[in-house]
Amino acid sequence: MGRVTARRRVMRVRDGVVSHRPDTLAAEEPMEIRVDGRPLTVTMRTPGDDFDLAAGFLVSEGVVHRAADVAGIRYCAGATSDGGNTYNVVDVVLGAGVTPPDASLERNFYTTSSCGLCGKASLDAVRTTAAWTVEDDLVRLGIERLTEFPDRLRAAQKVFDSTGGLHAAGLFSADGEMLCLREDVGRHNAVDKVVGHALREGLLPLRGTVLMVSGRASFELVQKAVMAGIPVLAAVSAPSSLAVDLADETGLTLVGFLRGTSMNVYTGAERLAAVPAG
Amino acid sequence: MGRVTARRRVMRVRDGVVSHRPDTLAAEEPMEIRVDGRPLTVTMRTPGDDFDLAAGFLVSEGVVHRAADVAGIRYCAGATSDGGNTYNVVDVVLGAGVTPPDASLERNFYTTSSCGLCGKASLDAVRTTAAWTVEDDLVRLGIERLTEFPDRLRAAQKVFDSTGGLHAAGLFSADGEMLCLREDVGRHNAVDKVVGHALREGLLPLRGTVLMVSGRASFELVQKAVMAGIPVLAAVSAPSSLAVDLADETGLTLVGFLRGTSMNVYTGAERLAAVPAG
Repeated sequence: MGRVTARRRVMRVRDGVVSHRPDTLAAEEPMEIRVDGRPLTVTMRTPGDDFDLAAGFLVSEGVVHRAADVAGIRYCAGATSDGGNTYNVVDVVLGAGVTPPDASLERNFYTTSSCGLCGKASLDAVRTTAAWTVEDDLVRLGIERLTEFPDRLRAAQKVFDSTGGLHAAGLFSADGEMLCLREDVGRHNAVDKVVGHALREGLLPLRGTVLMVSGRASFELVQKAVMAGIPVLAAVSAPSSLAVDLADETGLTLVGFLRGTSMNVYTGAERLAAVPAG
Repeated sequence: MGRVTARRRVMRVRDGVVSHRPDTLAAEEPMEIRVDGRPLTVTMRTPGDDFDLAAGFLVSEGVVHRAADVAGIRYCAGATSDGGNTYNVVDVVLGAGVTPPDASLERNFYTTSSCGLCGKASLDAVRTTAAWTVEDDLVRLGIERLTEFPDRLRAAQKVFDSTGGLHAAGLFSADGEMLCLREDVGRHNAVDKVVGHALREGLLPLRGTVLMVSGRASFELVQKAVMAGIPVLAAVSAPSSLAVDLADETGLTLVGFLRGTSMNVYTGAERLAAVPAG
């Protein structure tokens, strides 16, 4: 996984003292996702788990829902003019009967024809696209269990300590087993990598699980959790208003500011309240 | 600016003690940018400074370079089915002679026809698109001046303290004047808002200035600085490898981990080294 980090010279200043030394950085490279040979999108990502990233992106966009929806994933050879392989172009071959996305797919989650462009339309779009619901997922989770997840995510981040530059997404079972950890310079990519891994393992929908993310909780991250059937999303930092609205609308439990023994529970507290805190 | 934040009920847990109270969140809403009436992109953003955001996005993409390149900006009425206005659709009317972007614009910075999809191609694309260079900007900056900027950015963030959920981008002159501050749930939007404000004020290229951002420094943020002619980008957190490569290639000074009296200078140290640290 040598491409996950890169070394660069840096001038360090500490309290006015200057030194020069090599520094380890999180790698960032463009990756194009193709579907049945047709270019769909380009994302800037940290190389590694690229097939998971491509598969998870297509789950988030509502294109695929189960392992059989993906017939194969491969790097495109001939991506450079001399026929070489940059390992930055990934083609996903869809399974029989799966409808390919159209080129304007990126706008699907933000607009519907019924009522113009607004938060409400964005919520409606997720509800009508999701293949399953999370509101009927009756998983219960101890509050003290939840407070363990940030430290366990951090401890499992091999790369983070050396670069300080990678977002992490970790998938946990309700009884505390870490099922999957993925990292990326982009927090949405880290989540797509987790979801794509689960899809390819035949684990969707991810009922009874908790997705823990190292940063903030945006609308987009709640969308990705819902599309994967994950009932609980916990973030180290703040959620946005639309993230809370989407969580509320879909029945997802949304936890923010999960630090030490503290947290804010924005929606779906019934999954936590059933277990005494003490 | 009532749409910048939103109130939601939250269940707070502090050391096992549960309470219920209203909480202030950063607002997030979709915004569609149109150019001469044609839809170009949708971004999730915090409402406010929407015209700056639209203008700055077009600077970052190499579509406009000076105030006269934008003939007008307005909210589209009739964005809902009943003819109402969501204030989430913004149309930019280009000035005479300005070439409109094509629909595949989002990929311009990541691919060139010459050598496939890779980091090097991404760097080349920025160099060939930028309207000016920053490498000949001979601004000099005291290291101790630079260390003041994070606190001043933080102090100027009126919203941050109440929500903990907004990224900030601040533009400073080399002698320490804060020229512009903008906030958003998306860090790239905060930078676009700063750049768009500067474009509309006729200030591009932003020679002799420093852009300070609250988060990490990605390829995309370095690209935006270069496209606006900003010679120094400073970030509170880590840069990615491709951010450092692009800064090196274009002659931009890139500072990361700017905290307290410490910083890492990844490129362009000559703009800082000319001033003694003590």
